Amino acid sequence: MTAAPSRPMRLGLFLQGAGHHVAGWRHPEAEFGGENLGLIQRIAATAEAGKFDLLFLADGLTTSADAHPSFVARLEPMCLLSALAMGTKHLGLAATMSTTYAEPFHVARVFASLDHLSGGRAAWNAVTTSYARSSANFSRGTHPPHDERYAIAEEFLDVVRGLWDSFADDAFLKDKASGVYVDPARVHTLNHEGKYFSVKGPLNVSRPPQGHPIVIQAGSSGPGQRLAARTADLVFTAQQTFDEGRTFRDGLRRQVAEEGRDPDHLMILPGVCPVIGATEAEAKALYAQLQGGIDPAAAILLLSDRLGHDISGYDLDGPLPNLPQSDQLQSRAKLLTDLARRENLTLRELYYLVAGARGHRIVWGTPEQVADALTEWFVGGASDGFNIMPPFFPGQFERFVEDVVPILQQRGLARTEYTGATLRENLGLPRPENPFFPR
Amino acid sequence: MTAAPSRPMRLGLFLQGAGHHVAGWRHPEAEFGGENLGLIQRIAATAEAGKFDLLFLADGLTTSADAHPSFVARLEPMCLLSALAMGTKHLGLAATMSTTYAEPFHVARVFASLDHLSGGRAAWNAVTTSYARSSANFSRGTHPPHDERYAIAEEFLDVVRGLWDSFADDAFLKDKASGVYVDPARVHTLNHEGKYFSVKGPLNVSRPPQGHPIVIQAGSSGPGQRLAARTADLVFTAQQTFDEGRTFRDGLRRQVAEEGRDPDHLMILPGVCPVIGATEAEAKALYAQLQGGIDPAAAILLLSDRLGHDISGYDLDGPLPNLPQSDQLQSRAKLLTDLARRENLTLRELYYLVAGARGHRIVWGTPEQVADALTEWFVGGASDGFNIMPPFFPGQFERFVEDVVPILQQRGLARTEYTGATLRENLGLPRPENPFFPR
Repeated sequence: MTAAPSRPMRLGLFLQGAGHHVAGWRHPEAEFGGENLGLIQRIAATAEAGKFDLLFLADGLTTSADAHPSFVARLEPMCLLSALAMGTKHLGLAATMSTTYAEPFHVARVFASLDHLSGGRAAWNAVTTSYARSSANFSRGTHPPHDERYAIAEEFLDVVRGLWDSFADDAFLKDKASGVYVDPARVHTLNHEGKYFSVKGPLNVSRPPQGHPIVIQAGSSGPGQRLAARTADLVFTAQQTFDEGRTFRDGLRRQVAEEGRDPDHLMILPGVCPVIGATEAEAKALYAQLQGGIDPAAAILLLSDRLGHDISGYDLDGPLPNLPQSDQLQSRAKLLTDLARRENLTLRELYYLVAGARGHRIVWGTPEQVADALTEWFVGGASDGFNIMPPFFPGQFERFVEDVVPILQQRGLARTEYTGATLRENLGLPRPENPFFPR
Repeated sequence: MTAAPSRPMRLGLFLQGAGHHVAGWRHPEAEFGGENLGLIQRIAATAEAGKFDLLFLADGLTTSADAHPSFVARLEPMCLLSALAMGTKHLGLAATMSTTYAEPFHVARVFASLDHLSGGRAAWNAVTTSYARSSANFSRGTHPPHDERYAIAEEFLDVVRGLWDSFADDAFLKDKASGVYVDPARVHTLNHEGKYFSVKGPLNVSRPPQGHPIVIQAGSSGPGQRLAARTADLVFTAQQTFDEGRTFRDGLRRQVAEEGRDPDHLMILPGVCPVIGATEAEAKALYAQLQGGIDPAAAILLLSDRLGHDISGYDLDGPLPNLPQSDQLQSRAKLLTDLARRENLTLRELYYLVAGARGHRIVWGTPEQVADALTEWFVGGASDGFNIMPPFFPGQFERFVEDVVPILQQRGLARTEYTGATLRENLGLPRPENPFFPR
């Protein structure tokens, strides 16, 4: 092991109403509900007590009765985070919003508003929406193919960032005596005319406290990595092994440098599902208990979903069949395929594994063992921190904060206090200049 | 005067960051800012102390440096109301959202989410967006004409209400033992295919506590009234005289009955801007002071905006010219034209009047006089209550709550306590049945 990095380990809480394990909500201690505000407020308070950088919400634009319990019904992320902003002081608040099914003006507006409401703690996870079925809820006949979705996303990001710069920080004079509310010379009209969007501006929200809310990217395909290298502050990803993590991080940092950015200004947080017990035996039993709650039909559905192909017709005790490349979730499908081939897994073994954390890494053990697993990746340069995905709430997450975080703090890896006023400051990132109003 | 109505006077607070009078923010006592959360939270608490039914936010999808100070920059309404839901217990929370520039799936989702977050206090003011310039921020070349906007709105409302009924109230079994989270037989897929929208559903939020959040309509044109008669619970309107108010209310109640609905299930709240002083002389002086702060250029812009025509080239001391019908804000333009003709106003007199409250009724006087003016309309059947539009915040609104509301309460007109758990209950409206899952 090399010396500890000079920057603290970044910790995100990936909040999901019914936990991340598909059967987590069935555990006797689990409380759950994507619309259970009281529970979610308690979880946010726990994350803040653990000095987490941010709370992260995924999103989806469709539902069905057979969806993961966390996704069947849930509060719209921007409404939920605006409410959570009121009960928290330091925790970053990250929501997912689609570049395929939302308008750049609206996205710029709601994240700027959340940034104001929260005193500079907003983060936008820009996703391109993998699922073609989303189009059916938005009066659209077709879902754009993978690479076009990323081309749209590139332009979408530019428009949003341009709109955030509509006002100089000192544009609002608010001078009662003269009656001048805003200085017209300090307002910028974007007049964007591109291939996919034409947006005039200015935005009807003043410049956010962070300048730009934090931008997160979760796509790991080629186009996803290029978008991240150019625009993202954080990347959420899914790697199963240290070597995969190290290779991915090294490669993405190189691309960031090629964009003329400081590689340290992009931080990579793989998802991890920690299953924690007081002893190794207890943790193993808990993991077995969770796996035992899996409904095979639900697990096959979930795996089909992640692979982008219906696998229900294949022999469950045979190997993963050769499937053509899907148009959705390309990088996630590749990770799972690599995993199945590397570990020589049957389809049944693979779906049991995926049901745990949807292809993310599962770490089970004592608090010390979990801390060791995180330390290895972080100190070894395979990540800048982790997006923590508890199998169920609130118990397993409280356990992480109460038992694992202190070990990471004692090792000098995790922070013991918030040091900045905004999420951006806590992440050690500079506030972007406004290119239209240089100082 | 006839006997007092058996139902309490409905009171809405029309919240606008810099007050409703165009020069209100310049008053020495005014605090302001559409992004000033602390101020807005105090105002919401005052409204709740005054037992107001709801707090109402207008919205706009464009801005410019010469816009009304309340509109230059403001927090996105759904984010702001989600935050305000956390500090209030009884106050209804109403936001404006466009049927021309939003998606029905998104609108259904955010209002259902706010309803859950607030324990049943959400209200949606469905507007068609008057201003053609909005199209430039949403990658659209054209803005639909007036009557088509209402045709779109009719279908939009049907989709949103259908999506709110996606789940039976008892759909979520959440049974740990069996592993059944939701009963598939209690989930309804809308499969809407119409002229303007195709939306499959179901919505990914469970049925709102109110069944349907309250629906507000603010258009007073023919198509606006038809839409309101069929779908609205509340109507915000602008009338200058008792007779106008009475005629409008009688006519709309007739249309509601023709739709097969109980006329008492639609309540009409004209906007009123109360300018309050301890004495009549003080109120008159305050009104004069506010009018003296008006910038003529801003006032002409505002009047041009409300009329839908640029009037800056006309003789300010001549009469209102004959203008062709505009495509935006038709009913508001007609009210102003009628007012100018009736009172024989010069253009200058008209714009000074409009600058006060954008065409809404201004009442100045002592608390007793303001209470009298409201009582006359309410008891005489010209309204079911009022949307209060203070000229500036927080002073003039505090004055209304501290000095005018108690008079209305002593007269047995305004409520002294909240009686229901939800906004719908406080308004005395029944919770809609779910047509897909009749009891």
